Amino acid sequence: MRTTTGWQSTGNSTDLRQVAIERRELRDDDLAVRVDYCGVCHSDLHAIHGLVGKPTDGLVPGHEFTGTVTAVGSAVTGFAPGDPVAVGTIVDSCGECAMCRAGQENFCYQGAVTTYGGTDRVDGTVTRGGYSREYVLRDKFAYRLPAGLDPAAAAPLMCAGITMWEPLREAGVGPGSKVAVAGLGGLGHLGVKLAVALGAEVTVLSRTAEKEAGALALGATDLVVTGDDEQMKRAFGRFDLILDTIAAVHDFTPLLRLLGLQGTLSVLGAPLETSVRIMELTFGRKNLTSSGTGGTRHTAELLSFCAERGITADIELLPSARVGEALSRLEKGDVRYRFVLDLADLD
Amino acid sequence: MRTTTGWQSTGNSTDLRQVAIERRELRDDDLAVRVDYCGVCHSDLHAIHGLVGKPTDGLVPGHEFTGTVTAVGSAVTGFAPGDPVAVGTIVDSCGECAMCRAGQENFCYQGAVTTYGGTDRVDGTVTRGGYSREYVLRDKFAYRLPAGLDPAAAAPLMCAGITMWEPLREAGVGPGSKVAVAGLGGLGHLGVKLAVALGAEVTVLSRTAEKEAGALALGATDLVVTGDDEQMKRAFGRFDLILDTIAAVHDFTPLLRLLGLQGTLSVLGAPLETSVRIMELTFGRKNLTSSGTGGTRHTAELLSFCAERGITADIELLPSARVGEALSRLEKGDVRYRFVLDLADLD
Repeated sequence: MRTTTGWQSTGNSTDLRQVAIERRELRDDDLAVRVDYCGVCHSDLHAIHGLVGKPTDGLVPGHEFTGTVTAVGSAVTGFAPGDPVAVGTIVDSCGECAMCRAGQENFCYQGAVTTYGGTDRVDGTVTRGGYSREYVLRDKFAYRLPAGLDPAAAAPLMCAGITMWEPLREAGVGPGSKVAVAGLGGLGHLGVKLAVALGAEVTVLSRTAEKEAGALALGATDLVVTGDDEQMKRAFGRFDLILDTIAAVHDFTPLLRLLGLQGTLSVLGAPLETSVRIMELTFGRKNLTSSGTGGTRHTAELLSFCAERGITADIELLPSARVGEALSRLEKGDVRYRFVLDLADLD
Repeated sequence: MRTTTGWQSTGNSTDLRQVAIERRELRDDDLAVRVDYCGVCHSDLHAIHGLVGKPTDGLVPGHEFTGTVTAVGSAVTGFAPGDPVAVGTIVDSCGECAMCRAGQENFCYQGAVTTYGGTDRVDGTVTRGGYSREYVLRDKFAYRLPAGLDPAAAAPLMCAGITMWEPLREAGVGPGSKVAVAGLGGLGHLGVKLAVALGAEVTVLSRTAEKEAGALALGATDLVVTGDDEQMKRAFGRFDLILDTIAAVHDFTPLLRLLGLQGTLSVLGAPLETSVRIMELTFGRKNLTSSGTGGTRHTAELLSFCAERGITADIELLPSARVGEALSRLEKGDVRYRFVLDLADLD
């Protein structure tokens, strides 16, 4: 066993404690990665509070990180020590089902192995995440971090970024597309940047006008206040795609009415169950869909695209010892737009 | 005013009475049509029972009919007396909104004028449907009935048929597509025929195995019994598109699980409001959509396609005086697969 250090939640607490963590000895197709930067995702909070997956005592969160390869297994040919890499929400999958064959390992029919709180396919141990100084994973699920991308600001591409990218790509967004992004947080701000870079005209939908300057700075053309009936009426039927990043359960009807013919509302903030007025889908033959993170095909594509266009997240970088502060501020929505932990303080 | 005869429901009764009906004098762009055959649609029952639109005392249902032009307004150039025509669920729309400009008058932002129970855009009168010997409508919403299509069996194409056609076309169904049709009634049996004619491999989903022979006769390759866990498990992830023609509110989860990556569940039987487990859309990035009837673009296309392929509905033809019997048998699901009224007995 290899030993490293990380930040662990016990008893649903956001006050994480520094602990020693064991990592497995490298298998033939494994990499050991020194974790340099790890983003703080809203689903880390859900996991800590036991809202997703089984509540895990001794939870080590973190599923969007960048780092440096320190060692490789005997069969690894794509990576060498010293290589900069990025890792996202998935570290293994069956590789054989229709989803895996399509490069959509995030939907693996056997269940993808998540970066933390998952069950390793080989030894059955529970995975522990990137809030730690070292991570060991199968080479297939590590991505070379392209040169020119700041490794701290690139970390959130691996969860928040890819969660925006898959629906944008699958909807065929490009020049002429009219895209709205509901909610301007970690996911939403990357949704705006990516949609703008794809050539779309982008609008932010927000409960208040206070995020307008931020929205425009990210490249949006305007912000529509969802509580303002006049503004909502003017936006009626206007969008081809809405990326809905709102985490709380909410009424889809007002958003569906902003879609044009065959428009798509993509629900990405993970409300668990919602009642839908079917007639709101009928008129205009609208689509309600959802997605979450991404498979290898889209993730590799996203990293290339971001390198070409110089896109990373807008982050607040904190030493990892301040993880508790990051989580409690995130819980209050007090972050522009993503916290990233610098793990160097664990050395 | 012109006077004709029709069948009218009073006080939510399916025991319709024969009454005299006034039709307007022809406007410049109007046709008068002798109604020869009119299909009996499940939504006629909804309308009689006041479940859709305002309960209308003196309701004359009927919105899928074929007939013969008997007179034309002074500005009509596309039709002449003697022409065989087909009329569907819509008889006017604003013509100016984005939906109308796209040939999707069924979604007109001003509200399409429905064939019965609608409000005429010019004189404000309430429209009365095709359970009558004559109908007067704007030429734009009449379609030439192609030669070679039996006019009685073609009538249901105008509502049931087009309701299946739009989602099939918009999903790009063709050779290689795997389509399922849930429910094998008036809508479903045309869904099977049209999907098969487009080249898809088609499966019927039904509560019991008793419709299997009928499904295979229509061209389906198999029938999956939705209550049989083993059969449902084998069909997991198998379809690109499910045309869901079930009218009652039902759980979408078992159907969503039969879809593959980015598969679409198109809800066409008009359950009004349903709770959706968003996670069932997330895994596989599945789409929930709906649609209803069709605009001029798809309707004209459908009629050409059906003429080329010789597709019409499988019907039970009754003299219009037996409309009450048709409605009460339809209410019990006792029809293979669509009742059509022969209006000649009104002469």
